[in-house]
Amino acid sequence: MAEKITPRNKDFSEWYLDIIQHAKLADYSPVKGCMVIRPNGYAIWEKIQKVLDGMFKETGHKNAYFPMLIPESFLKKEAEHVEGFAPELAVVTHAGGKKLDENLVLRPTSETIINSMFSKWIQSYRDLPLLINQWANVVRWEMRTRPFLRTTEFLWQEGHTCHETESDAEEEVVRMLEVYRKFAEEYMAMPVFAGRKTDAERFAGALRTYCIEAMLQDGKALQAGTSHALGQNFAKAFETMFQTRDGGRDYVWQTSWGVSTRLIGGLIMTHSDDKGLVLPPRLAPIHVVIVPIFKTPEERDAVLSKARLLADSLRAWPTKKAQLGGPLSVHIDLDENKSPGWKFAEWEVQGVPLRIELGPKDIAKGQAVLARRDTGAKSFEPLTDIPAKVLDLLVDIQESLFRKAKEFRAEHITDVNSYEEFKKVLDEKGGFIRAHWDGTSETEKAIKEETKATIRCIPLDNVQEAGVCVKTGKPSTQRVLFARAY
Amino acid sequence: MAEKITPRNKDFSEWYLDIIQHAKLADYSPVKGCMVIRPNGYAIWEKIQKVLDGMFKETGHKNAYFPMLIPESFLKKEAEHVEGFAPELAVVTHAGGKKLDENLVLRPTSETIINSMFSKWIQSYRDLPLLINQWANVVRWEMRTRPFLRTTEFLWQEGHTCHETESDAEEEVVRMLEVYRKFAEEYMAMPVFAGRKTDAERFAGALRTYCIEAMLQDGKALQAGTSHALGQNFAKAFETMFQTRDGGRDYVWQTSWGVSTRLIGGLIMTHSDDKGLVLPPRLAPIHVVIVPIFKTPEERDAVLSKARLLADSLRAWPTKKAQLGGPLSVHIDLDENKSPGWKFAEWEVQGVPLRIELGPKDIAKGQAVLARRDTGAKSFEPLTDIPAKVLDLLVDIQESLFRKAKEFRAEHITDVNSYEEFKKVLDEKGGFIRAHWDGTSETEKAIKEETKATIRCIPLDNVQEAGVCVKTGKPSTQRVLFARAY
Repeated sequence: MAEKITPRNKDFSEWYLDIIQHAKLADYSPVKGCMVIRPNGYAIWEKIQKVLDGMFKETGHKNAYFPMLIPESFLKKEAEHVEGFAPELAVVTHAGGKKLDENLVLRPTSETIINSMFSKWIQSYRDLPLLINQWANVVRWEMRTRPFLRTTEFLWQEGHTCHETESDAEEEVVRMLEVYRKFAEEYMAMPVFAGRKTDAERFAGALRTYCIEAMLQDGKALQAGTSHALGQNFAKAFETMFQTRDGGRDYVWQTSWGVSTRLIGGLIMTHSDDKGLVLPPRLAPIHVVIVPIFKTPEERDAVLSKARLLADSLRAWPTKKAQLGGPLSVHIDLDENKSPGWKFAEWEVQGVPLRIELGPKDIAKGQAVLARRDTGAKSFEPLTDIPAKVLDLLVDIQESLFRKAKEFRAEHITDVNSYEEFKKVLDEKGGFIRAHWDGTSETEKAIKEETKATIRCIPLDNVQEAGVCVKTGKPSTQRVLFARAY
Repeated sequence: MAEKITPRNKDFSEWYLDIIQHAKLADYSPVKGCMVIRPNGYAIWEKIQKVLDGMFKETGHKNAYFPMLIPESFLKKEAEHVEGFAPELAVVTHAGGKKLDENLVLRPTSETIINSMFSKWIQSYRDLPLLINQWANVVRWEMRTRPFLRTTEFLWQEGHTCHETESDAEEEVVRMLEVYRKFAEEYMAMPVFAGRKTDAERFAGALRTYCIEAMLQDGKALQAGTSHALGQNFAKAFETMFQTRDGGRDYVWQTSWGVSTRLIGGLIMTHSDDKGLVLPPRLAPIHVVIVPIFKTPEERDAVLSKARLLADSLRAWPTKKAQLGGPLSVHIDLDENKSPGWKFAEWEVQGVPLRIELGPKDIAKGQAVLARRDTGAKSFEPLTDIPAKVLDLLVDIQESLFRKAKEFRAEHITDVNSYEEFKKVLDEKGGFIRAHWDGTSETEKAIKEETKATIRCIPLDNVQEAGVCVKTGKPSTQRVLFARAY
């Protein structure tokens, strides 16, 4: 198994695809650009959904479901929106054996269809804020696809909210960006920059787009989540109005925000290694795998019975919410057609954070071997200590993965002060570049065309610092984050 | 609110639509036949999903996700399948600004695309059984739609499994039918007949279809879930083969099974009344609503503080899995723009099983009013007894709704022995009819055309009993269940 994974330093893209194949996370489908999410991959998505859904509900949002099919005319109601999404639309022209009177598009995002409903549901300021989320599939016809990171159909959540005032909406945009940052860092163990997008990278139809940006192990950036201040643009297009507190009428102020199965791609590219997948314990579907070791039938009975007792004690071990967010998930590998050595490698490929090896000699000594997936460290532990030790190790692995990713990121951020240096760092070292920029879309576009680097974001907590644009020499008030991105 | 709901005995269809509108469960969308599931409706779907997903996992199934878009040619590979679904397909002909080389259909069900993947994943008997489930949206272009019961797009789960032998597959088909029966009766409190479909009602491409059939308050039948023995039909169409234990090659034996958002329609039509929605506690998103009653600011502070303490004690009250499947869900209605009376009616419309009324006089006496949604019964209870009493009442409501529905069903099943009687009972009394049938599709079709009644199922535990077909007088070995259906 493991020897077939291409090493990262040989070909990072191949390594990524190998991880997905060997860990059975996803597979190519017969439909161009669409992937199949296999059980191992979907189990991670279920963990992601459960945590995020809880965070959305804690911040007052409710789930709903809107049609996947959107009348083509709806998209055209918001001029920038249709311009941004038209090239990526998939269109239903026929149904029930007949040509449709009006074409229907598969939702690339749902602002338009949702606004048409909000217009029916909202009458007064008493109906605000309206805080809705939807878990759904969306379709964007992409030219170049890559499993999880960019697929024609993908799964996501899209939050859509309406507010009385622009400042209420802005608070919501920032609140949900913070939910994403917290999720990325505390659950995915993936450090991110939270910041604002430039106009060129803004969501089609939004006033402002905020994002979280991660750095992957090849130094490239991944936009991992976005939160948009939509202003009154869609409200005006769909007449989403409300009676104000002083008896007048106004358009609602809106937000939308989303993350998708792309997060799984980010998770893989942040932590995994040449042996396979590495998962942070808080998102690992299985925390501990027990591999029983035996030769004779007598050994088999003794080892399996001890393994089951150990699994039960692990499953019953109390955990705190801040540790794993639920009980320990334990799997005993009972396959008798495979050798222990094969199993060790296989569970490493699949990214299970901890492995317990248990054989007759261990039992005689009242101990077992505990092996960490992230560092490979192995130790003998008394059986009675194992549940507490397992929980400690999982917490340590979670923290350690985050620390390691932060260190990697810190080593790959470079301040540059000239365009020559900019290009040299980008080509030779990669990673993120902090550079002064004159604030214009023209300069951003010129840099992108020449270097393939884009402005990932202007961090929210950015230090204001006078300087000159690396490209044009014009004055600048702050450094922004450049990188090549997925 | 409540007075606007059409009574059931005046117009059952209007009553159903009124419940959906007033309880804010769903709304019509701008797209023909597609509904929007509003937060109140989606919260019920989330409860349904959580319970069923747990039952699927307990029986060894894993979730995955397959593309929504299916190449048109795939459906044609299984002759009966395409014949059954072709009239209902929605077709994507253009995407990314271009005409597609091959049209893609929106999945009406996923046997074909899933089999194309199973063929890649299965090599040997060691890979079997393969037990997969998917939660997804599907599209079937329906002529006549009705919220929840029949919509163009709907949400569902579809299980797809592969086995070594026909008998293994048959065991799975029956196992999952039993999961559905258990869910319908123990969670939805909706009694069902588990049985086999006739050939005329069989899933397009299956050898045999099993189903659970419910009786709604208007006496009509609802097919609430199906489980199909697919045989080797799709395996042959997609070359899904495995190496057998004796070294040969064979096609896998398959099953598929599904339930959908249609269940919510069944839930409404089984329990609700002229005042609004009635929900069985095990699927109610909110178990208890507390309505605080006060006039002065002093009363307000005292009542709200006591209401919050009561809510906390309810939320912390231990419940057993067999009772509610989780902690008590409590909502305090803090809206100060509405009167208590208005709130009582509103929460009745929304189907919350229990209401607690709490005012200054109650607090002085150390009591509160507890009101049941299903019977309307009200009682004064000492505050300290309320958590235990609430849990008892919820368990009682769950059982009572099921008992009432079983009694209704028993009263609306009639054994008939002649075709005259068949038609008379169907028109005057409705409900289910147990009648002898000669076993041919021709007779079934003739009865359907004349009476609009179909054979809902041949119950699994059916008594064998010699008789003659009500329509043709030909010999019959058992009575089957006829009804008009949704």
